[in-house]
Amino acid sequence: MKKLFLLALLGWMGAGTVSAQQKGTWIWYPGDYEIWLGNEMNNRRTERGTFFPPFWKLDSHYVLVDFHKEFDLAEPEEVEIRVEGKYLVKMDGKTLTGSPARMTVPAGRHVIHIKVHNQATPPAVYVGGKNVYTDDSWLVTFEDKEWIDESGKVSDTSATEWLRAGSWNFDSPDARPSQFRLETVPQYAAGTEKKTNGEVVDFGKETFGYVKFHGLKGKGKLNVYYGESKEEALATGTCETLDYLAVDANGVDSVLEGSRAFRFVNIERDPGVSYDSISMLYEYMPVEYRGKFRCSDEEINRIWDVGAYTMHLTTREFFLDGIKRDRWVWSGDASQSYLMNYYLFFDSPSVERTMLLLRGKDPVTSHLNTIMDYTFYWFISIYDYYLYTGDKDFILQFYPRMESLMEYCLGRRNENGMMQGLPGDWVFIDWADGLDKRGEVSFEQLLLARSLETMALCADIYGDGEGAARYKRLSGELKDKLFKTFWSDEKGAFIHNRIDGKPTDNVTRYANMFAIFFDYLTPQQQESVKNNVLLNDKVQQITTPYMRFYELEALCAMGDQPLVLKEMKDYWGGMLRLGATSFWEKYDPAQSGADHYAMYARPFGKSLCHAWGASPIYLLGKYYLGVKPTSPGYATYTVEPVLGGLEWMEGTVPTPDGEITLYCSPKRIRVKSDTGTGTLKFRSRNKPVCKGATIRETGDRQYEMTLEKGKEYDIRASLMD
Amino acid sequence: MKKLFLLALLGWMGAGTVSAQQKGTWIWYPGDYEIWLGNEMNNRRTERGTFFPPFWKLDSHYVLVDFHKEFDLAEPEEVEIRVEGKYLVKMDGKTLTGSPARMTVPAGRHVIHIKVHNQATPPAVYVGGKNVYTDDSWLVTFEDKEWIDESGKVSDTSATEWLRAGSWNFDSPDARPSQFRLETVPQYAAGTEKKTNGEVVDFGKETFGYVKFHGLKGKGKLNVYYGESKEEALATGTCETLDYLAVDANGVDSVLEGSRAFRFVNIERDPGVSYDSISMLYEYMPVEYRGKFRCSDEEINRIWDVGAYTMHLTTREFFLDGIKRDRWVWSGDASQSYLMNYYLFFDSPSVERTMLLLRGKDPVTSHLNTIMDYTFYWFISIYDYYLYTGDKDFILQFYPRMESLMEYCLGRRNENGMMQGLPGDWVFIDWADGLDKRGEVSFEQLLLARSLETMALCADIYGDGEGAARYKRLSGELKDKLFKTFWSDEKGAFIHNRIDGKPTDNVTRYANMFAIFFDYLTPQQQESVKNNVLLNDKVQQITTPYMRFYELEALCAMGDQPLVLKEMKDYWGGMLRLGATSFWEKYDPAQSGADHYAMYARPFGKSLCHAWGASPIYLLGKYYLGVKPTSPGYATYTVEPVLGGLEWMEGTVPTPDGEITLYCSPKRIRVKSDTGTGTLKFRSRNKPVCKGATIRETGDRQYEMTLEKGKEYDIRASLMD
Repeated sequence: MKKLFLLALLGWMGAGTVSAQQKGTWIWYPGDYEIWLGNEMNNRRTERGTFFPPFWKLDSHYVLVDFHKEFDLAEPEEVEIRVEGKYLVKMDGKTLTGSPARMTVPAGRHVIHIKVHNQATPPAVYVGGKNVYTDDSWLVTFEDKEWIDESGKVSDTSATEWLRAGSWNFDSPDARPSQFRLETVPQYAAGTEKKTNGEVVDFGKETFGYVKFHGLKGKGKLNVYYGESKEEALATGTCETLDYLAVDANGVDSVLEGSRAFRFVNIERDPGVSYDSISMLYEYMPVEYRGKFRCSDEEINRIWDVGAYTMHLTTREFFLDGIKRDRWVWSGDASQSYLMNYYLFFDSPSVERTMLLLRGKDPVTSHLNTIMDYTFYWFISIYDYYLYTGDKDFILQFYPRMESLMEYCLGRRNENGMMQGLPGDWVFIDWADGLDKRGEVSFEQLLLARSLETMALCADIYGDGEGAARYKRLSGELKDKLFKTFWSDEKGAFIHNRIDGKPTDNVTRYANMFAIFFDYLTPQQQESVKNNVLLNDKVQQITTPYMRFYELEALCAMGDQPLVLKEMKDYWGGMLRLGATSFWEKYDPAQSGADHYAMYARPFGKSLCHAWGASPIYLLGKYYLGVKPTSPGYATYTVEPVLGGLEWMEGTVPTPDGEITLYCSPKRIRVKSDTGTGTLKFRSRNKPVCKGATIRETGDRQYEMTLEKGKEYDIRASLMD
Repeated sequence: MKKLFLLALLGWMGAGTVSAQQKGTWIWYPGDYEIWLGNEMNNRRTERGTFFPPFWKLDSHYVLVDFHKEFDLAEPEEVEIRVEGKYLVKMDGKTLTGSPARMTVPAGRHVIHIKVHNQATPPAVYVGGKNVYTDDSWLVTFEDKEWIDESGKVSDTSATEWLRAGSWNFDSPDARPSQFRLETVPQYAAGTEKKTNGEVVDFGKETFGYVKFHGLKGKGKLNVYYGESKEEALATGTCETLDYLAVDANGVDSVLEGSRAFRFVNIERDPGVSYDSISMLYEYMPVEYRGKFRCSDEEINRIWDVGAYTMHLTTREFFLDGIKRDRWVWSGDASQSYLMNYYLFFDSPSVERTMLLLRGKDPVTSHLNTIMDYTFYWFISIYDYYLYTGDKDFILQFYPRMESLMEYCLGRRNENGMMQGLPGDWVFIDWADGLDKRGEVSFEQLLLARSLETMALCADIYGDGEGAARYKRLSGELKDKLFKTFWSDEKGAFIHNRIDGKPTDNVTRYANMFAIFFDYLTPQQQESVKNNVLLNDKVQQITTPYMRFYELEALCAMGDQPLVLKEMKDYWGGMLRLGATSFWEKYDPAQSGADHYAMYARPFGKSLCHAWGASPIYLLGKYYLGVKPTSPGYATYTVEPVLGGLEWMEGTVPTPDGEITLYCSPKRIRVKSDTGTGTLKFRSRNKPVCKGATIRETGDRQYEMTLEKGKEYDIRASLMD
């Protein structure tokens, strides 16, 4: 991924001057560039041509940042300095004159400090050299507390807090972070339908980018109505996005300023305005499709492909939810994108960027996106991130921000020590008709308990033993309360909520299904939840792919892949049969026609390209190919293929170091891994064989085999799903 | 002041389009513009041509802000909208298309919301109209928490916190806050001394602004060395400020980009470079000299004039300390500027701006300017601000910021509940050789006690009864500790500090003199402090005008005006006799020649124009004219004239509503006030008389008289100082 992206970047940064020996990358205060870039993105949303910004607090980068590193050189070295902002350079505590673009560092041990002020964009530094260059080993602070007293003596700065610099892949002096843009490539219409004074252009599938008019001329109005559906593009009075343009041109090619999501474009023009043709610049994040999946069922293959495309469309500067209407970064949606990403792009910088933007800075004045559950998903995602990537840095750098966010949550518990929506808190859970959000909701306590477990883990990694003990105690206490308060032996399930101390009669799927894959239930409780809730049609059905994600994950975790395969074909296949080219925010098979496009009391309010719609990517990788890490960064992992009714499947799961590839049919498993130590697990009717490997029998028809890095295994067996 | 300043502003904002009926002023999130403007100023410091930024955290404005107000109109009204940033407008919850520059508000009751995003400069809004216009009654938030649920229903926003908008005097649509500049006026050289390839230009007195070359031509280098003294301008290797210019010009007039403080400019040019003449643009804050003072002693008059000029030079976008080298905003220095300002300009917006910048935003990560005592001065200044101006708004708007700063302080107390420097804390107190800052310093506890008293007062005003009680208790406890720990009956004074539980033998002036005007001492203790400390030459002398301010205030508070008059003539008169045209950062009569200019181990490190040097302005107004408020905003006040050895004096003290003017000689007091209810107090050998007023005898030769607003009083007496 990194290589691909770099090549792409060279396009806009005018490369060529950098010597092959020169190293260096742009660095900044960690999290600050992410917050800045996120503000840029979150403020690009429009609603029918009008700016539509978020309703939560946006944070800012530190406007004054000091960067430093110590070097020990065998010989003097001349280095190049580039800075975004006003700056000074110090060597060994002595200020250099002016703001030098080059400096010579003499042989020996030297400390270089660069201090930068920039209000509009994040202070950022590039130092290029053979040995002296910027990377994430530089230390940064927003407050160096270095003063001199009357006698000229420098203060004790031992209390100054330094973090490691943030960086991405701006590896050339001209690749200024503030100038970053996603890649674009031209796309052309798949069909056009002429109208009086206009036309409706179909780009063949959901897409994202900038409409381009070729040979635009004349004077007058030109209106562009966008539609994810044709109905929407034609509904000039209610379509969600549009551009009203005043044209005065003489045959130029014009690219519109704002990017939009659409499949159809409906052009209406004054008679005096004309153009030769219309195309678009498709805008995308250059990521590699490292994860792959193919199987005997073409509909499932199509679901995987459309899921992957949906993920790619929503993987932008950050993981977006919906690309048409919404275009804000939401923690609940993003936490699913992270998981899908681990089975598709494995683009860790996108996960980190999104988590940093969502967290923002202290003081915490509301839940993430104002939503209680979204705060908890943020914590839980850190656990996942560490498990999949093995990257401790996020925790080592940002544990204090985790702590202050958790303190905010703990400070909002009620007198029973439970979370309950206070004014200004959005208890979201799911888009579902009549969902009760009052009082103590079992689902929220469950998420907090899991968040506290994450905090305990991270406290240990950070070296905060006292914190770890406290969070462990708090999560244990809360889990106890959860079962005492909400588990109903009569219902064989968690009830939904308790209001003013009185448990309601209501059972919903949320807490019940999460408890399964959180592994909070005994096998008996799991079975009970499955029958009384998951497979019980009387319990309110889930209609968003968002919660379908977790529902199907719970079923998979209990080994119900055949059932889930059918559900995928029904639900996602249902969208495909309606012509979907990307997956939707919500899908209700009972609806028909253009009713499918309505939401939020608006005829085209629904997003037809929504990240949470892509969950089959995750389910197929984790529960069918069955690949998942068991220790951080795939140092160890399991491969538990489950065909779930498929005749065969093959696929690739990306890891931090290479791939795990797998083929599986009822009689054969072929597996190869570039990383870690794996355990292949499967059930076979007969005794399986594999040349050059030892297969262990671990139970009734259950087998295990160790997978070593770099070796290829070909197992013959008679698989039982 | 406001009128004067507005006229000045019109110069740069291109007036003329606004109808006489149109009202409106630019508004922003309170404190945000101040922080932004302060960052601009704090980052203009240079050291020998190199950028030199602060070492403490700089905060930022909220980049996304919602402004709203409800109006009730008798008839429809068209209004003008100007915004700094990307914005949307809503009326009654419904979004208007695009970003309108005008809108019509129908008759009846309507709520207007304007939401603005701006990263580079603070989101700011101007709405101009007859009845619908922006002012500080608009409400603002950085987080409206207004979302819609699936059904299109708007969230409960009752928990959204709204503050009143911030504003200043940008009362025209074109007066964009981000474009604000101080005024300039040309000034010309008082003398010139030619040199080979250059000249030394003397502008006659300390000044501030931009050097201008007339008819600059040729190609080559032109170096400008600035000096507050001639010695400094000539010392090209050690002068504090300079500009290295590369000229390539053909006779243009060129104004240098950076403003500098200087009296002398030393030009060195390449032979190929020439110019016709040199002048400068003097840059200043257009404030009115409302306070006045004249007396029988010409040296004191000169001290007052130079003090006023020093105050004017340092009253810029914010109250600066030193205008040459430093150019940062410091809380300790500013707290004295506020007090002097009350007797000179009475420019409350400058006080508020400076206090808001200094406080910055949460989270608190260090003391103000990293200095423990400077945090406390900030609290104490709020008390003074309220007393002098009667303006409760600062407290009502910013009490939460006061609280969080106080929590930061309280969280840093040691096991004895006292302040003690932790790593990263600068215990400043004063520039004084060998001053001990270790352990528990009595002075810091005294300042914290006073700060807690201020908190108690403000908590009451804010309506935080619980907080008020707590702060009252804490200040009481700390005062008890202060006396128990540091008061020495043997020394008849507070000792300086206690280290590891052991009181030192050291007596300094700091805690002792503050305790007097804080009124913490019994009359016996006061007398003891006066004799054992203030008038005791064995106790280390104070050499900064900074602490002289408080030392002389303590003496004045005890009625020692004759002594203080002599001190003023010695100390400030001493600087004048050395040719000072503004007052210095530090003055040691024992030094001679250019030694006076050295500080911080640098030959010209000392500032020759330092705000804290202007204290006679305050002393003469408050303790000689004797005018001071006794309830907020001069609702009541006292006039206690003390000639202190002068034959006569006359002066004017500004108040929020008009002036108090006074003439006083041993036989006569004439007084007139535009405001409140005053009490004139004096001692007279004989029974005083005043036509049309009743004079009350309140003690042995002590008299009091009530001063009514608008009346003029002429009292005959035989005054005793």
